[in-house]
Amino acid sequence: MIRSANYAAEAVPCWGRFEGRFEGPRTGNPYREVTFYAEFRCGNRAVEAEGFYDGEGIYKLRFMPDTPGVWTYETRSNSPQLDGQRGGFEAVEPEPGNRGMVGVKDAYRFQFSDGTPYLPFGTTLYHWVHHEDEAEEELTLSELAKAPFNKVRMCILPTGDMHSQQLAFAGSREAGADVSRFNPAFFAHLERRIMDLQQLGIEADLILFHPYDQGVWGFEQLEPETEELYLRYVIARLASFRNVWWSLANEFDFNVYKTMDDWDRVCRMVRRFDPYGHMLSIHNGTKMYDYTRTATYDYSKPWITHQSVQHWDSGLMAEWIRTHRKPVVLDECCYEGNAPRRWGNVPGEELVSRFWDSLVNGGYAAHGEVFGEPSWISRGGRLYGESPERIAFLRKLMEQGQADLWLPEAERTCFWTYLGISRPSSWELRLPGTRKFHVEVVDTWNMRVERLEGSFSGTCRIPLLQQSYLAIRALAAD
Amino acid sequence: MIRSANYAAEAVPCWGRFEGRFEGPRTGNPYREVTFYAEFRCGNRAVEAEGFYDGEGIYKLRFMPDTPGVWTYETRSNSPQLDGQRGGFEAVEPEPGNRGMVGVKDAYRFQFSDGTPYLPFGTTLYHWVHHEDEAEEELTLSELAKAPFNKVRMCILPTGDMHSQQLAFAGSREAGADVSRFNPAFFAHLERRIMDLQQLGIEADLILFHPYDQGVWGFEQLEPETEELYLRYVIARLASFRNVWWSLANEFDFNVYKTMDDWDRVCRMVRRFDPYGHMLSIHNGTKMYDYTRTATYDYSKPWITHQSVQHWDSGLMAEWIRTHRKPVVLDECCYEGNAPRRWGNVPGEELVSRFWDSLVNGGYAAHGEVFGEPSWISRGGRLYGESPERIAFLRKLMEQGQADLWLPEAERTCFWTYLGISRPSSWELRLPGTRKFHVEVVDTWNMRVERLEGSFSGTCRIPLLQQSYLAIRALAAD
Repeated sequence: MIRSANYAAEAVPCWGRFEGRFEGPRTGNPYREVTFYAEFRCGNRAVEAEGFYDGEGIYKLRFMPDTPGVWTYETRSNSPQLDGQRGGFEAVEPEPGNRGMVGVKDAYRFQFSDGTPYLPFGTTLYHWVHHEDEAEEELTLSELAKAPFNKVRMCILPTGDMHSQQLAFAGSREAGADVSRFNPAFFAHLERRIMDLQQLGIEADLILFHPYDQGVWGFEQLEPETEELYLRYVIARLASFRNVWWSLANEFDFNVYKTMDDWDRVCRMVRRFDPYGHMLSIHNGTKMYDYTRTATYDYSKPWITHQSVQHWDSGLMAEWIRTHRKPVVLDECCYEGNAPRRWGNVPGEELVSRFWDSLVNGGYAAHGEVFGEPSWISRGGRLYGESPERIAFLRKLMEQGQADLWLPEAERTCFWTYLGISRPSSWELRLPGTRKFHVEVVDTWNMRVERLEGSFSGTCRIPLLQQSYLAIRALAAD
Repeated sequence: MIRSANYAAEAVPCWGRFEGRFEGPRTGNPYREVTFYAEFRCGNRAVEAEGFYDGEGIYKLRFMPDTPGVWTYETRSNSPQLDGQRGGFEAVEPEPGNRGMVGVKDAYRFQFSDGTPYLPFGTTLYHWVHHEDEAEEELTLSELAKAPFNKVRMCILPTGDMHSQQLAFAGSREAGADVSRFNPAFFAHLERRIMDLQQLGIEADLILFHPYDQGVWGFEQLEPETEELYLRYVIARLASFRNVWWSLANEFDFNVYKTMDDWDRVCRMVRRFDPYGHMLSIHNGTKMYDYTRTATYDYSKPWITHQSVQHWDSGLMAEWIRTHRKPVVLDECCYEGNAPRRWGNVPGEELVSRFWDSLVNGGYAAHGEVFGEPSWISRGGRLYGESPERIAFLRKLMEQGQADLWLPEAERTCFWTYLGISRPSSWELRLPGTRKFHVEVVDTWNMRVERLEGSFSGTCRIPLLQQSYLAIRALAAD
């Protein structure tokens, strides 16, 4: 145990957050002018993390330990006041329910740091923290508490048509954004909501850029040095939240100001400054694949952890997985609702069907709904759709069986067939080897599971009721 | 007018059929050994057509004139008995309802010889003439008479598992096929059914080869000279039926014995021997397009008149049209039914939706249904599905408006929007220029058309009832 003036009185669980508070310069523009970082050490490990200016002459240094033991740090700064500060804390085993960060396992799956599989069932709440409406945000959280979603896609930057003062940068609607400074109050609020999500077991898939600025704030065409300032500030504040994912951009290909090299540069920047290797992807607009097999963004690039796809055709899931050999989350596959735009008005049946298609083929999908305005995907509020209940049913079943999907056939104990809109009177099931299976017919829409009598093996015919949205589950009987 | 022993007593309408009957050798193998053809002349035009051996020492020569006037012919044969025969007939204007052959117009459309647009609404009856069941065939025809279909896909060759004696070649199930000889009785029956279809205004899309032989007859691996014998015989007998189309093969890519060069060769052979230039295409199995934009058969080849596509995704229609710049008939897009195979169990709603998608995007689609066995697509019989009635409704609407689709926007008087499964509460319609339109909301499943009050122009919002399968039709109001 170290003894130093800054030694933290309380232990920090692994994947929890240490926070050090320091006084420093408040004149000039501390966001730009003051460099401040620390090297954290534990045994022979050393990890560098940047601190950030939180306003009012206060600087903070956050760190998320991944190993129990004594961690010490020493700061470096171009401000003598902040330089050479030493301190430390003790990291202890994570508390129950704290499974660490989500990472990639065996190329195609996700798991938490503790080895628990993570099957993303996401939803979209782009601007739920931007409207200064505490009651609405609390309603959203209470809806999330009842819903099956364990990942939320949400933007850090507002759209051009928002009149909120909830801005990550300094400035205001009237005066414009001052992109050389930040708004600590916005981030404090955002951090509270990220923690609320964490309490609910929900990953916060933070969207760093988006193309909905309409030329109002100028956020689609920031100078490279401003992008760096922004990304480093965001990372310094938020990377220590274990449930954070980085989504470099939403519909990045709709931004007409940036080239692919620009996107590569900012992706690499996030990877360089993030001390923990959070999940990182970038989300396409329309052009996921054209018929030349060109993805607009090449997910095989090494800084990308997973494929965050927009596409209406969940039937391409296996193709995407094969192409880039990284897990696929179909983060947008049209939303349930009644919107007057093609992306926002599929029936619940169709959205749920796209989930099933994705999961049974080894990928994952995400939810969204648009019933009137403001809509769930825009700012949360109440859920009206028919899909969340069915997605909950799917999640429950898949958490029993889907992790099995990547094992060699002989080791698998669960085989899924999903029939979509098809209405066969029977289905020929081909079960591997000579093993015996129980077979269940799953009505994915009415959420019923019916186990057929007896056991099945080899090629066998399963009688069905000629209705759409059926799945068949074969479970090893021994 | 000519005067010759063989001058026909009755005039032949254009696109009708002249038939001359000749006695010739009956020994040896007349199918292989006797060459027999004639040059038909009308004014300064000359067209060569082959005759065929019809058994019992009888040879026939058929010809379909396309121009009124006196047509004469003179035969050529390696049999002195058949050589140098002269004759003729008078071709007159076609009778009412006889519009001639279907051809391609302006790259993307079909029309009859008389200029009437032809919008194919096909169905599939692969083996309806192979089962020696007159009552069933009559039932099929009476169902067709009530149905909206004006093209039938049907095979000339039986599948391997059929026990019928209705074989185009000589031979029998027990003795095997004698591919050096034909079965005139089979063809006489087939011709009667082609004429029955013609009476109903239905094109006979004759499938010349298919990959369902299972090694029984050997039809998937005929020698090139046998292929030529077969194709020349079929053409000599059937090309004079104006409602014949040639479908080189069904699911040609499932035939493992043939190379692309083989298919090119047989396609070119059909083109060479067919005196009239009937419609000619070839139908893919699974691999219409993979994501490398490779069609298994390149429809841009000059002998191909149109694209006879199998694909479940009617949303690719515009892409196919753009790629090969030939009309597209989505001849198989899954069948309505309850079959235990993916291709045969979509709900009627989905099949009808794929029709709408195809038509509104400038292509065409075809129907099929599989409810139990034997199924409509296999041998006809009764129609059970919910789609034919809706396809009739679509056909009626499209025959009023779809021909308009290819005109320059300013000249068009009809604009369609099809919303598929979407359930928007309203839709933003963008009407061209400053013209005024009437707007109709079409419930494609319940077959209702509701005209909205007033007129519309420019960008306007159309209120909708949040249900799937709606279309919007805008009709020029002036």
